[in-house]
Amino acid sequence: MKLLRVGTVGAERPALLDESGVLRDLSGLVNDIDGELLADGSALARVREAAETGTLPALDAEGLRIGPPLGRIGKVVCIGLNYHDHARETGAAIPAEPIIFFKAADTVVGPDDTVLVPRKSEKTDWEVELAVVIGRTARYVDTAEEALAHVAGYAVANDVSEREFQIERGGTWDKGKNCETFNPLGPWLVTADEVPDPQALSLKLWVNGELKQDGTTAEQIFPVAEVVRYVSQFMTLYPGDVINTGTPAGVAMGAAEPKPYLRSGDVVELEIAGLGRQRQEFADA
Amino acid sequence: MKLLRVGTVGAERPALLDESGVLRDLSGLVNDIDGELLADGSALARVREAAETGTLPALDAEGLRIGPPLGRIGKVVCIGLNYHDHARETGAAIPAEPIIFFKAADTVVGPDDTVLVPRKSEKTDWEVELAVVIGRTARYVDTAEEALAHVAGYAVANDVSEREFQIERGGTWDKGKNCETFNPLGPWLVTADEVPDPQALSLKLWVNGELKQDGTTAEQIFPVAEVVRYVSQFMTLYPGDVINTGTPAGVAMGAAEPKPYLRSGDVVELEIAGLGRQRQEFADA
Repeated sequence: MKLLRVGTVGAERPALLDESGVLRDLSGLVNDIDGELLADGSALARVREAAETGTLPALDAEGLRIGPPLGRIGKVVCIGLNYHDHARETGAAIPAEPIIFFKAADTVVGPDDTVLVPRKSEKTDWEVELAVVIGRTARYVDTAEEALAHVAGYAVANDVSEREFQIERGGTWDKGKNCETFNPLGPWLVTADEVPDPQALSLKLWVNGELKQDGTTAEQIFPVAEVVRYVSQFMTLYPGDVINTGTPAGVAMGAAEPKPYLRSGDVVELEIAGLGRQRQEFADA
Repeated sequence: MKLLRVGTVGAERPALLDESGVLRDLSGLVNDIDGELLADGSALARVREAAETGTLPALDAEGLRIGPPLGRIGKVVCIGLNYHDHARETGAAIPAEPIIFFKAADTVVGPDDTVLVPRKSEKTDWEVELAVVIGRTARYVDTAEEALAHVAGYAVANDVSEREFQIERGGTWDKGKNCETFNPLGPWLVTADEVPDPQALSLKLWVNGELKQDGTTAEQIFPVAEVVRYVSQFMTLYPGDVINTGTPAGVAMGAAEPKPYLRSGDVVELEIAGLGRQRQEFADA
């Protein structure tokens, strides 16, 4: 299923994009698309049944804002340098184990919302990423095989980053990862049953129409299952948590000088095969 | 005022400790102690008035668990190496600007709850810290003077840390800061009017009755006001966010070999003058 949330900021209603591309209202059936729903197998089964029997009311998509496809997000765990090609372009060594950093849930915005270039920013960068949404509490998961059973679904994320704040300001990466609006998510939360192989997804990102990133999750150093297993050794993952699993090559930081960092007025579009497409205009904070 | 939350995990009710040390029920007046309340001046004024007129029902404190004094926490921003004496003991240089890392809100537990030593942990450490609770949205705050107006109050925090996970496992500090139960908070949220000078607070921590940390916030490299101003340049702080402002000298990592890292059965007690006292038993995860 393709689950989403539509409406104004903070007042999104749950919806579903059906097989024929019609937007359907879920608000009569569930309160929200959130960790509580994702952890509730019978509620999800009711949604699936309603979708299949065609009993859900249609919604007029015209002019409707799409919000992030997940409400009440707990935490956003991010994996750094998780693609062979991206590690090469940044000149970094292949990590021996996953690098973990954090984005606060309050950085998450809808897939087409405006993204703000922070004040005094000279190095705002893009990162198309496969986001993993947790549906079952994952705590000291033993094997990669077990790990995938904790994944409710997948979404597109833009892990927007300010490279000076991240790397040159004396501290951990979090300082350049948590500016407001820095985590567009969506348009859809695609349930895991529709993503048979998370290691075979094409990811693309364009800036002002020019293709910048053109990668595949096959290049991930640590695949999704291993990432979930690994992270669960250091912290407990709860339903409604998100993991951004890293970005492929093609970010501004990896380009030749002068590096094409983002400015107000730039338009970033990104897409993962089967998970939908985002489009953000950048503006000054 | 000393605001707190009492009851079983996830079902805490709002309460107040009055001037004579009597626990008072606030659940008839407010839904919770959270960012929404802290941002609502008139609701806070009603609580204050009810406290002063003595109309709040008393609660029987006997056997009542104290939860974290803040519900629905957004994010927990942490400042690293923020005490001159702690920087010295770890052999680290004095940071040129604040070091920022994150704890997820789901690591927060009550002040006397059990803390779990992670599996495979050899280096679980303690850190008594002054926690700052945000009451007004702080975004690009210009001056340190303005910054304090965004602070709703203060609390005691134990920024529990696993040093191997934090430092030796190839990544940012977050990996050793986010194990479950790693952020005891409370017992009280003491409103800012009762803390006239946050740079004159004594902090103490004992392990199994032995005094390990005995510091003062006067040793902070970046005082609370500067921390709030600084952080607001990189991310927006919202009501209900928390900042752990760093720890003074005396952690296990700074001790002579063999370093006295925490084990199941150890008891940690900590206290900040005027903000109350915590006591945690450590157990295996």
